[in-house]
Amino acid sequence: MSPFVLAQLATQAIELPSWAFGNSGTRFKVFSTPGTPRTIQEKIADAATVHQHTGLAPSVALHIPWDKVGDYDALRDFAGEHGLALGTVNSNTFQDDAYKFGSLTHTDAAVRQKAIDHHFDCIDIMHATGSQDLKIWLADGTNYPGQGDIRGRQDRLADSLAKIYDRIGENQRLVLEYKFFEPAFYHTDVPDWGTSYAQVNALGERALVCLDTGHHAPGTNIEFIVAQLLRLGKLGSFDFNSRFYADDDLIVGAADPFQLFRILYEVIRGGGFGPDSPVAFMLDQCHNVEDKIPGQIRSVLNVQEMTARALLVDRPALTRAQDAGDVLGANGILMDAFYTDVRPDLAAWRESRGLAGDPMAAYAASGYQAQIAADRAGGTQAGWGA
Amino acid sequence: MSPFVLAQLATQAIELPSWAFGNSGTRFKVFSTPGTPRTIQEKIADAATVHQHTGLAPSVALHIPWDKVGDYDALRDFAGEHGLALGTVNSNTFQDDAYKFGSLTHTDAAVRQKAIDHHFDCIDIMHATGSQDLKIWLADGTNYPGQGDIRGRQDRLADSLAKIYDRIGENQRLVLEYKFFEPAFYHTDVPDWGTSYAQVNALGERALVCLDTGHHAPGTNIEFIVAQLLRLGKLGSFDFNSRFYADDDLIVGAADPFQLFRILYEVIRGGGFGPDSPVAFMLDQCHNVEDKIPGQIRSVLNVQEMTARALLVDRPALTRAQDAGDVLGANGILMDAFYTDVRPDLAAWRESRGLAGDPMAAYAASGYQAQIAADRAGGTQAGWGA
Amino acid sequence: MSPFVLAQLATQAIELPSWAFGNSGTRFKVFSTPGTPRTIQEKIADAATVHQHTGLAPSVALHIPWDKVGDYDALRDFAGEHGLALGTVNSNTFQDDAYKFGSLTHTDAAVRQKAIDHHFDCIDIMHATGSQDLKIWLADGTNYPGQGDIRGRQDRLADSLAKIYDRIGENQRLVLEYKFFEPAFYHTDVPDWGTSYAQVNALGERALVCLDTGHHAPGTNIEFIVAQLLRLGKLGSFDFNSRFYADDDLIVGAADPFQLFRILYEVIRGGGFGPDSPVAFMLDQCHNVEDKIPGQIRSVLNVQEMTARALLVDRPALTRAQDAGDVLGANGILMDAFYTDVRPDLAAWRESRGLAGDPMAAYAASGYQAQIAADRAGGTQAGWGA
Amino acid sequence: MSPFVLAQLATQAIELPSWAFGNSGTRFKVFSTPGTPRTIQEKIADAATVHQHTGLAPSVALHIPWDKVGDYDALRDFAGEHGLALGTVNSNTFQDDAYKFGSLTHTDAAVRQKAIDHHFDCIDIMHATGSQDLKIWLADGTNYPGQGDIRGRQDRLADSLAKIYDRIGENQRLVLEYKFFEPAFYHTDVPDWGTSYAQVNALGERALVCLDTGHHAPGTNIEFIVAQLLRLGKLGSFDFNSRFYADDDLIVGAADPFQLFRILYEVIRGGGFGPDSPVAFMLDQCHNVEDKIPGQIRSVLNVQEMTARALLVDRPALTRAQDAGDVLGANGILMDAFYTDVRPDLAAWRESRGLAGDPMAAYAASGYQAQIAADRAGGTQAGWGA
Repeated sequence: MSPFVLAQLATQAIELPSWAFGNSGTRFKVFSTPGTPRTIQEKIADAATVHQHTGLAPSVALHIPWDKVGDYDALRDFAGEHGLALGTVNSNTFQDDAYKFGSLTHTDAAVRQKAIDHHFDCIDIMHATGSQDLKIWLADGTNYPGQGDIRGRQDRLADSLAKIYDRIGENQRLVLEYKFFEPAFYHTDVPDWGTSYAQVNALGERALVCLDTGHHAPGTNIEFIVAQLLRLGKLGSFDFNSRFYADDDLIVGAADPFQLFRILYEVIRGGGFGPDSPVAFMLDQCHNVEDKIPGQIRSVLNVQEMTARALLVDRPALTRAQDAGDVLGANGILMDAFYTDVRPDLAAWRESRGLAGDPMAAYAASGYQAQIAADRAGGTQAGWGA
Repeated sequence: MSPFVLAQLATQAIELPSWAFGNSGTRFKVFSTPGTPRTIQEKIADAATVHQHTGLAPSVALHIPWDKVGDYDALRDFAGEHGLALGTVNSNTFQDDAYKFGSLTHTDAAVRQKAIDHHFDCIDIMHATGSQDLKIWLADGTNYPGQGDIRGRQDRLADSLAKIYDRIGENQRLVLEYKFFEPAFYHTDVPDWGTSYAQVNALGERALVCLDTGHHAPGTNIEFIVAQLLRLGKLGSFDFNSRFYADDDLIVGAADPFQLFRILYEVIRGGGFGPDSPVAFMLDQCHNVEDKIPGQIRSVLNVQEMTARALLVDRPALTRAQDAGDVLGANGILMDAFYTDVRPDLAAWRESRGLAGDPMAAYAASGYQAQIAADRAGGTQAGWGA
Repeated sequence: MSPFVLAQLATQAIELPSWAFGNSGTRFKVFSTPGTPRTIQEKIADAATVHQHTGLAPSVALHIPWDKVGDYDALRDFAGEHGLALGTVNSNTFQDDAYKFGSLTHTDAAVRQKAIDHHFDCIDIMHATGSQDLKIWLADGTNYPGQGDIRGRQDRLADSLAKIYDRIGENQRLVLEYKFFEPAFYHTDVPDWGTSYAQVNALGERALVCLDTGHHAPGTNIEFIVAQLLRLGKLGSFDFNSRFYADDDLIVGAADPFQLFRILYEVIRGGGFGPDSPVAFMLDQCHNVEDKIPGQIRSVLNVQEMTARALLVDRPALTRAQDAGDVLGANGILMDAFYTDVRPDLAAWRESRGLAGDPMAAYAASGYQAQIAADRAGGTQAGWGA
Repeated sequence: MSPFVLAQLATQAIELPSWAFGNSGTRFKVFSTPGTPRTIQEKIADAATVHQHTGLAPSVALHIPWDKVGDYDALRDFAGEHGLALGTVNSNTFQDDAYKFGSLTHTDAAVRQKAIDHHFDCIDIMHATGSQDLKIWLADGTNYPGQGDIRGRQDRLADSLAKIYDRIGENQRLVLEYKFFEPAFYHTDVPDWGTSYAQVNALGERALVCLDTGHHAPGTNIEFIVAQLLRLGKLGSFDFNSRFYADDDLIVGAADPFQLFRILYEVIRGGGFGPDSPVAFMLDQCHNVEDKIPGQIRSVLNVQEMTARALLVDRPALTRAQDAGDVLGANGILMDAFYTDVRPDLAAWRESRGLAGDPMAAYAASGYQAQIAADRAGGTQAGWGA
């Protein structure tokens, strides 16, 4: 692997979600595991462990109210001592009883204001934590035709978002995530990139789209959306994960590694990678049955390895083949990069930077898992509860 | 509507699931509502209310262990006093920590035996309740390629099912439900009708397939499966609900009424309807945001209305058009029945039998909802917890 | 049905596609039928027959080059004598060998110019025919990852569209249709409404989106897109048809009548229906196995009947139920309209206007089919050939 | 790569479809290319070229009537001289006008007999060519609900298949292919593996299922079906190709290489690979925009490379991780094999056997493409026409 590729990889940073270290599951069952953190501080300690083993994950995203604390300065210091920055602040307008029929889109102005106020609180927290991005994933929607007025809800959403956007700071951004379905099963108020784009476009320059790789209809060409949003200057961030069916929230790259490769290729092609890019890389996953810390290590390694492969694409040769109408040749150039085994080179490079060549093995050997299993007795394990 | 159609409708019975009266939701949130039952007795009372208003739902399905009681004879009597029979017993092998990596398919023989023993318990309960059907929905599966040995799991499933089948009584049946995905996100051990059919076929005559209308891949022609299973003599029961996306568990007929019509047409066409048919009609739904009792009333009415439309199809004329290759004519005959507004006739007929013409309005006027909201203070509302 | 509803229905017009009267099929086989037109004049005669029986289809869309003639003034007169106007002009950039790797997006400027020139020809034809809309369905795309540069193709598309847009007249419009996939199987250059919206938004006010109801990913909520595009002022036209799987191009309303109802409800809700609306209603279907003329009659009747049902929705009551969070009540109001059998009232109204009450039966009795089967001997039956 | 793996690879044979060398396309356009064969002999010459460069494709499948000749002994000799055997005979019951409304399922006994007789002809050809397998892909189905009697068609299918099965020789097999949809758009008579399994199960031991990797609903876990059919002893053959959307018929491994890996892993796991296995490997693809001969070379190399990766899986270690519930460990073992770059070892091994290390480059350098483009002037290029 060339020094040029390695230099680019050296700039890569992937934000971890605090909630990935807590328990998660399905509507049928949430399995718990020994060592699961009880507090945001323990989540940060776990995230720091991922970063120590990989050098890839220097920040952790917060979810409010799950990670609410009294003193955010102290939390920022705590994270800093663990080598981490506090990253994106994620709002939550889907777990309060008031939001049963909507939040930012609700017909009742009081409910909308409550949801807007929650975002104001989040912005206050961002100022304290130094976070750049306010991420809004809106669970609003309906389960039955007729239950809500699709059009009116969209208009109210625009109003609510405008009020929130007005409050963010000059160096802050609002990123609006879209999702095909779930928890709403008939219509979702921000179901696709077009809706997210239309809404953030109406807000202003610091409003951008968040693309969660698991939030699309079956068969959707996600790398096309990546290319399109980069072209329109509106790709703010990624929520990485993978899926076979719906929003499965599996480890990124686990379900369709070639898709991850194609996505990362379009990110690079479109100027979305590197220190000057405005695109933030985050994970958003559930570790329902696998161990959480090694699950996150595996995830950031997957993103790094696939980024390396995407960086290996011989772009001048690819362009020549494309221009010549050489279908098999062009495809072959892409596949050559994908099939290259970058793992040995990355291991060596990792070691040259003082990291373990095999972070999964190093974590397993570290004793950390046994330590937290022993230490974290009692208390309530973190999950998706408020 | 002809007396012949009404006579056939008079035989229709749709079993209600006890859990439909408890709270349900998504992994993101379960909303609670006033009046939600705390006990199986309160669930039965609610189910009885549905039957009183519709005359369509004379039995209620149990879910073990959610509906476990000390004295099933007493429960049977309680139900009888409310005009209900106890119906299908549903097993649960997805909520015990032991089943994290499988139950009837687990690599560990002790875990498999635990799951088999649970079904033996269910069979014991069936003898006490007078239930005919043991329904097995198997949540077993894996989230990641390689996590499990797909082939070995299938073999172990066959062994476990054989042990359970050996235990059921001569007048009892084992019905095996299939599901495309969820809670497993890579592979599911009984994902499609073919697998369920192959497994029950190996067991014997009293092993049959349960078709849940929400458990298929996008685009699947469900009425084809109905026709095929009836042809093979292996359609045991329906779990009715509807969906736009995945296993949404919406009210039956809500998402695609025409699909429900086509399903019921094939049921009738294939001999699956009527007192001599072995096919059991059940609901399996979630009322996440709508009221539960009227949700169930609406559901059984939807099935009844659509059955009426399906019975209206002029089958001799349809056969003539089909044989003549008259595509538009044949389709038109089907659509004529579908577009017929059967509601006024059904209301009149309902009244002639001493029922309310409009069961939804009658329930709303009955005061039952306010009564249970007042009565059922304190305690723990029923949900999907064990 | 109230006079108010009937008055609204009286304004409805649904444009027929000339190509619906020719043969169509799949890549496996195109079946031919006696009486299939050989010329655009015979197609117009067939379209006129549909209009004579329904009063719903006063114009016919042309496809260039399939419907190319030497004298468009004469064609306009011919149509006028048959009671029809010439409508939308559809361009074709997918059947010339030059377009194997793209047309408006091609890397070769000469190929792009050829495709742009074709649209200039179409605009010239529009001036001669009095057509308002230039509809562009772009088949461009690639079959293999790497085959094309997704991002560059999008930029070239924008350039090409701008050149075409500059040429349309002040009273003309450019409508850009999107399609999920086919004939391209990896990426399509205009795959979704978001792309079409972003592209036409960059062009100007007279550039709009065309929504083909069969061009979406599985599970897509189409009525949401209708509501959104109306809200954004960018819904230009519909291509109506229906599908169970992909772009099946079945008769509108045949696969999912309830979906058609929901779409039409949102059209009406959003101001997309009526003489002042800018939204054009068209059919775009294939009659592969059914007779073509009655297929078109059935189609326009389906749209009319479903529009009538959508107009029956008690919108004030619906709003009240929605505002009250009455999920079942709101849904019930919608379903009441859907389940109303509007056919007898529409038949009576049709007769009051001098039309046959049952246009399908009237056509069958008219002898037209036998006449054209006898008359149209020899020649080459129209299909999708250039 | 170990000698053991290479020894297993040495037994691999992938049958080529004669029609892959002819033109194919979509309903919108079939592009032609210089050098396309005009006769079955030219197709065989092209197939032989693929085999010469890869050593992987020693036989070619015939499609009747596309490849009908007067003298099959001569054809067999011709193929033999080119180093090829004649393989599977594919029947065609979808292109005769008589089959518009069905073939083996038709309501008219005369049409059914015509289709049965066609299969008898195919069996006669098999005796002459020495073919083992009669492959039936049944395009039968309907486009509209009500058009056909789903149940009756299934019964007639069973009768027709029984008559065909009775005719095949003792060393011959009947393989029945299933397909989700297309060319029928409402229901297909053999839409899923369950139907194919139920039908062939009723026939006898020499009736088996053909699995085409592009013939499933979105999201279907194909490797599960592979495992299940091998377990049931009913997997007869594969039609390899790949898809992003529907039956795209792209180059095998092009759309989702990881899926191909998982499929081949289950083939090996279940005993479906190797000289003693009854499972036949075939390609069934369309080269709509790419060159056909190198497209086939690329395809067989993809299968070989992925088979090599699947053979590399450390199965004892995998079993240990599975038994231990080590989700990440088990998945990691599978991924280690997938991410191994087997290409250099395979190139070296190929050279050791007297083949070109890089068959794609060798073909490009061979001059064959220019030669056939020059030689094959005039005549009618082969396609899907009868």
